[in-house]
Amino acid sequence: MEHATPRIAALVGKYQSPDVAESLRLLAAYLRDQGLTVLVEEDTAASVGAPGFPPASFERIGNDADLAIIVGGDGTFLSAARRLAPYRVPLVGVNQGRLGFMTDVAREHMLDGMEDLLAGRFVREERILLEAEVRRGGERVQRALALNDVVMSKGEMGRMIEFELHVDGEFIYVLRADGMIMATPTGSTAYALSANGPILHPAMGAIAVVPLCPHGLSYRPITISDGSVVELVLLNPHDAMVHFDGQVRCDARAGDRLVVRRAPETIAFLHPPGYSYFAMLREKLHWSAIPKRG
Amino acid sequence: MEHATPRIAALVGKYQSPDVAESLRLLAAYLRDQGLTVLVEEDTAASVGAPGFPPASFERIGNDADLAIIVGGDGTFLSAARRLAPYRVPLVGVNQGRLGFMTDVAREHMLDGMEDLLAGRFVREERILLEAEVRRGGERVQRALALNDVVMSKGEMGRMIEFELHVDGEFIYVLRADGMIMATPTGSTAYALSANGPILHPAMGAIAVVPLCPHGLSYRPITISDGSVVELVLLNPHDAMVHFDGQVRCDARAGDRLVVRRAPETIAFLHPPGYSYFAMLREKLHWSAIPKRG
Amino acid sequence: MEHATPRIAALVGKYQSPDVAESLRLLAAYLRDQGLTVLVEEDTAASVGAPGFPPASFERIGNDADLAIIVGGDGTFLSAARRLAPYRVPLVGVNQGRLGFMTDVAREHMLDGMEDLLAGRFVREERILLEAEVRRGGERVQRALALNDVVMSKGEMGRMIEFELHVDGEFIYVLRADGMIMATPTGSTAYALSANGPILHPAMGAIAVVPLCPHGLSYRPITISDGSVVELVLLNPHDAMVHFDGQVRCDARAGDRLVVRRAPETIAFLHPPGYSYFAMLREKLHWSAIPKRG
Amino acid sequence: MEHATPRIAALVGKYQSPDVAESLRLLAAYLRDQGLTVLVEEDTAASVGAPGFPPASFERIGNDADLAIIVGGDGTFLSAARRLAPYRVPLVGVNQGRLGFMTDVAREHMLDGMEDLLAGRFVREERILLEAEVRRGGERVQRALALNDVVMSKGEMGRMIEFELHVDGEFIYVLRADGMIMATPTGSTAYALSANGPILHPAMGAIAVVPLCPHGLSYRPITISDGSVVELVLLNPHDAMVHFDGQVRCDARAGDRLVVRRAPETIAFLHPPGYSYFAMLREKLHWSAIPKRG
Repeated sequence: MEHATPRIAALVGKYQSPDVAESLRLLAAYLRDQGLTVLVEEDTAASVGAPGFPPASFERIGNDADLAIIVGGDGTFLSAARRLAPYRVPLVGVNQGRLGFMTDVAREHMLDGMEDLLAGRFVREERILLEAEVRRGGERVQRALALNDVVMSKGEMGRMIEFELHVDGEFIYVLRADGMIMATPTGSTAYALSANGPILHPAMGAIAVVPLCPHGLSYRPITISDGSVVELVLLNPHDAMVHFDGQVRCDARAGDRLVVRRAPETIAFLHPPGYSYFAMLREKLHWSAIPKRG
Repeated sequence: MEHATPRIAALVGKYQSPDVAESLRLLAAYLRDQGLTVLVEEDTAASVGAPGFPPASFERIGNDADLAIIVGGDGTFLSAARRLAPYRVPLVGVNQGRLGFMTDVAREHMLDGMEDLLAGRFVREERILLEAEVRRGGERVQRALALNDVVMSKGEMGRMIEFELHVDGEFIYVLRADGMIMATPTGSTAYALSANGPILHPAMGAIAVVPLCPHGLSYRPITISDGSVVELVLLNPHDAMVHFDGQVRCDARAGDRLVVRRAPETIAFLHPPGYSYFAMLREKLHWSAIPKRG
Repeated sequence: MEHATPRIAALVGKYQSPDVAESLRLLAAYLRDQGLTVLVEEDTAASVGAPGFPPASFERIGNDADLAIIVGGDGTFLSAARRLAPYRVPLVGVNQGRLGFMTDVAREHMLDGMEDLLAGRFVREERILLEAEVRRGGERVQRALALNDVVMSKGEMGRMIEFELHVDGEFIYVLRADGMIMATPTGSTAYALSANGPILHPAMGAIAVVPLCPHGLSYRPITISDGSVVELVLLNPHDAMVHFDGQVRCDARAGDRLVVRRAPETIAFLHPPGYSYFAMLREKLHWSAIPKRG
Repeated sequence: MEHATPRIAALVGKYQSPDVAESLRLLAAYLRDQGLTVLVEEDTAASVGAPGFPPASFERIGNDADLAIIVGGDGTFLSAARRLAPYRVPLVGVNQGRLGFMTDVAREHMLDGMEDLLAGRFVREERILLEAEVRRGGERVQRALALNDVVMSKGEMGRMIEFELHVDGEFIYVLRADGMIMATPTGSTAYALSANGPILHPAMGAIAVVPLCPHGLSYRPITISDGSVVELVLLNPHDAMVHFDGQVRCDARAGDRLVVRRAPETIAFLHPPGYSYFAMLREKLHWSAIPKRG
C-alpha cells in the first residue's frame, strides 16, 4: 500500500454474523471486479461462506495480501490486528453498526470507501503495539501482542492483588489493587479510559500505566515513553489473570513477572479521506461540536 | 557544564528569607574557595546581601555563567528557570526545607552536593518548556515561557468561561469550564495533578491539556505530542486570566487567542548522583517503598 | 398548594428574552381564564411587559401567591428559588429550550402542564437549601441562601488559597486548593459534579463538601448530614470570593469565616405527573435507557 | 452496654497469629480479674488456645455477651461484625499494628482501654449494615449481611459484565462495567474509595452506588437514602461474582437479581474516649493536621 495500487486484498469478518456475511460478499465481488485477487480469512470463510474466493490463513494473508479489510466491530479489528501486525499488512475497518474507534468506514459507504482506497485517497496512520510476556522462573510461559492493552487483574478468587511495579529495571512501588493496565495510545480510549487513564494521541510514543482501583489515593496513572520496559511482579500469595486486548488470556501465579514493552512492529490503519482522530473522539465522547460565538 | 569544570557559578535565592541568606553566603564562599567566579543575582543580592560578590542581572548570568544554583523552593526555581532558559544555563536546586520536585539538593548536604557537581558527579536531564502568547486582533499582547504550565482560567467575575480548543489548527471542541491547563511533563505533577491530569515522565515529548472543572463529564485530559500547537479562543462574553507557572499573569478578553507550543529551548536540571525521577515521586506522593514478599 | 386549588399564581421570567415574553403572556392569559389571580414579578414585568397584570415584588409574591411559575432556564429558577424560599411558595419551572435539572415543563406542553397542575396532578418534592454567612471579626458581613451551592474560591489574584475546614466546631484539616464547594443534593449535579463531587439523591439530608483542585491527592469529597455546620476559615495572606448558586457574590479576606448550614426553610418543586428524578438524570447524563436482554 | 457495667465479655481474635494469642490471654486475664465472665470465640480458642476460658460459638456470644472485643485488624472486625450484628452485641476493636478504620484501640493501650470501657468512658456509635440476597428465578440462593459493601463484579472469564440498575423498583440504566459496589458509610472509605466513591460520614443514612470501571464517562457514583432498595439484574450472557465485605462470596448467573437494602439491625462500635471520626480519617488519609496561621 505504500506507493502502488493493491493487488491482493484479504477480507476478515466477525464470525457468525449474517449481516457481515452479506457485506463480505459485496466487498469480495466489488474488489474482484476491480481486478484484485481476494483472499477470505479461513475462519471467516467457514463461518459466513464465500464461494468462489480462496480461504486463506492469517499467515498466508500476512505474507501475500497488500491490505486487509476487517468487517465487524472494534473487537474483530483488534483480533485481526494482533494476527497481522507481524506481517505489517495495513488494515481498513468497516463497521456494520455505529462507527468504532478503529472501524471507521460505515457499511453504507463501504464501496465508495473501497473506491477511494484503490485510488490512493486515504490517510495512513501507524499505531504502536505492545509485546508482553509472562515469565515464571527462568521460562517464558506466554507471549502475545496487544494493540489496546495488557492487563494484569485479580484472579478467580476475586481478591485484590499485590504486585511490584518496575520501569526499566528500577523498582517503583508495591501496589495493592484490582490490577494494572498497560495501554497504548490506541488503547487509551478503551478500557484504560474507564479506569481514569489519560487520553493519549496516537502520534505519541507512549505507554500509559493505569492502576485499577488502587488501595491508596496517590497511585495515579503514569505515562512513560514507549522506549521503556514495564514489569509487574505478582507477590505472594496472589494469583491473577493477564489479558491481551481483553481477548487472549493467561493465568499468573505468585512470583510471575509480566514484562511489557513496545513491539518492534507497528500496524498501519488506512482511514477514509478527511479522517481526523479528534473528530472521531468528538463523535464518540459527545464533545461539543458547534463553535458558539456570541 | 557539558564536559568541562564550571568556572563561573551564579547564585539565585528566594527573596527576604534569612535562612536562604545564610545558605547563599556559605555557598558563595565555598565556590570561591574552589576557584570559581561567583555571581549573585542582583535582586537576590539586594534582598539578602552578599558582600564581596558581584551582583549580576539574569541577562549577565545567562550570558556568562556555566551553571546557576537556586536556593529556595520550587517557586524560586520556576522563576529562575523561565529567566535563564533562553541562555541554556543548567540549574541546580538547593532546598531549605522539605525537598521539592525540582529542588533536590538538601540544605544539609549542600556543600557535598557542590563537591559532587564540580567533580562531574551529577545526572543531567533536559526538560522542555512551553512558549505561549496571547493574541488580540492581529497583535501579540503577551508572550512568556512556562516550565510547568500555562493556564487560562475564569476571570475576576468568577464565572465559568467558554472557549474553543484547537490543536494544530483543527477545531476540537467548545468547552464551558473553570479553565484549561496546558502542562509540560515537569508541570504534570504540579497544578495539573490537582485537576486530575496524567503524570507524564519528563522524558516524554508531550503536552497535557487538562480541563478545570469541565461542564460535561467526557472532557477528560488529553495528552498530545510536543510538536503540536494548542490554541484556546475565549468566547463572548467571557473574560479570563492567563497564568504562566502560576507566577506571571495577564488578562484575556473575549476573542483573544492563547497559543501554546513547545519552546525552542530546553533547560537542563543537574541532579545529585543517584537521582531517580521515580524515587522522587515515590517520596513526594507517599508511594509504598518496601517490597513485601510473603 | 397542599390540598386546595391555587387561587393566586405568580409568574417570574428570564429578563430580556423575547421568547420568554411570549410564553409569559400565554401563561398569564390561560391562568386568568381559569379564574386565577395572576401576579407578574416586577422586574419581569418591566423587562417583558405584561399589560393587564399587576407587577408584584418578590415579597408580595411570597406573601400572597399559592405558587410561582418560573419561565426560563435553571439559572432563572435558582434565582427565584432563593428569593421565594423564605415564604415557602412552591415552584414550577417551564423551560424554553432543552429541559433543565429544575425546569422540567417543556414550553410546548406548558398549558397542558398548567391544566395538570390546577387539577392537582403533580409530584411535590421538598428540597433543602443552604444558609451561609461570612463573618469578619465578630460581625456578619454577608448572609445568603443557596439552593445549589456555596463556593469559596480563589480571589482576583488567581492564586490557590489556604483555609481550614471545621465541621460542627471540630477542626478537620487545612487545605490548599482552588476552593471548596458546599453543595445540596440539588446542587450535587451542578458545579460540584464538574469537580468530581458525588451525585446525591434529593431525598438525602446531606451536604457535599467538595474541594476544587486540592493540593494533595487524598482530599476527596466528603458527604455529611445536613444537621452539621461547615465552616471555612480563610488563612493569611489569602483573599477569596464566595458565591451563592454562582449568582450572588461577596469577597472574603484572610481571617474571614464562611459558615454554612442547612436553612430552616425548604422549597417545594412541583413536577409534572410521572416525574422521576432518575429519569431526568438519565436524560441529562446520557445514561443508557434501553434494557438489552440477550 | 447501654447503662450498666458489662458482666460477660467475649473475645474474638485473628486466627493463627501468635501476637494475637498473647494479647488475648492478657485481655482475658485482665477482664476476669475485673470480675467479668470471659467467653472466647470457639475458632479463636482452637487457633490460639485460651486455657481456663470457655470457648463459645458466635451464637452463644450473641445471646449472652454484653460486648465483644475483636483483636486483629479491620478484616477480623468485619467478619465478627457480620456474625454478631443480628444479636446487637457492641464491638470494640484492638489492633495489633497500625490502627484501622474500625479497630481503634492500640495494642499498647489495650488494658487502659478496657479500664475506660468498664468505667463507662467510651463513645458509642451505631453503624448501618446492608442485607443482600441473590435471587434466581423465584428463589433466594444467597443471603448475607455486609458492614462495608456488597459488590457484583465480573466473573472468572474476566470480561466486563452488563447489568441493569433499579432503585425502589424503578429502572435506572443498563451498565457495562467491571462491576458495581453498594457501600455503607462505613464501607465508603474502603473499597468504594478506590473506585472513586464518595466519603460518607457514618451518621448518614445512605448507600453509595459506585460503578467499577464503567464503560461510559457519565456513570458517576450515586448516593441514595438507606430507605431505598437497590437491585442489579445481570444480563445475558454474563456471569459474575458477588462479594460481601470482600469476604463471603457467591456466584451469579445471567438473569440473577442482586437485591441490596439496609439491614434491620445496626451494630454499635464502642470507641475510646475522645474518639473522632474525622481525626481517624485525617490520620489514615494523611490530611494536613497543623493549622497554619500566617
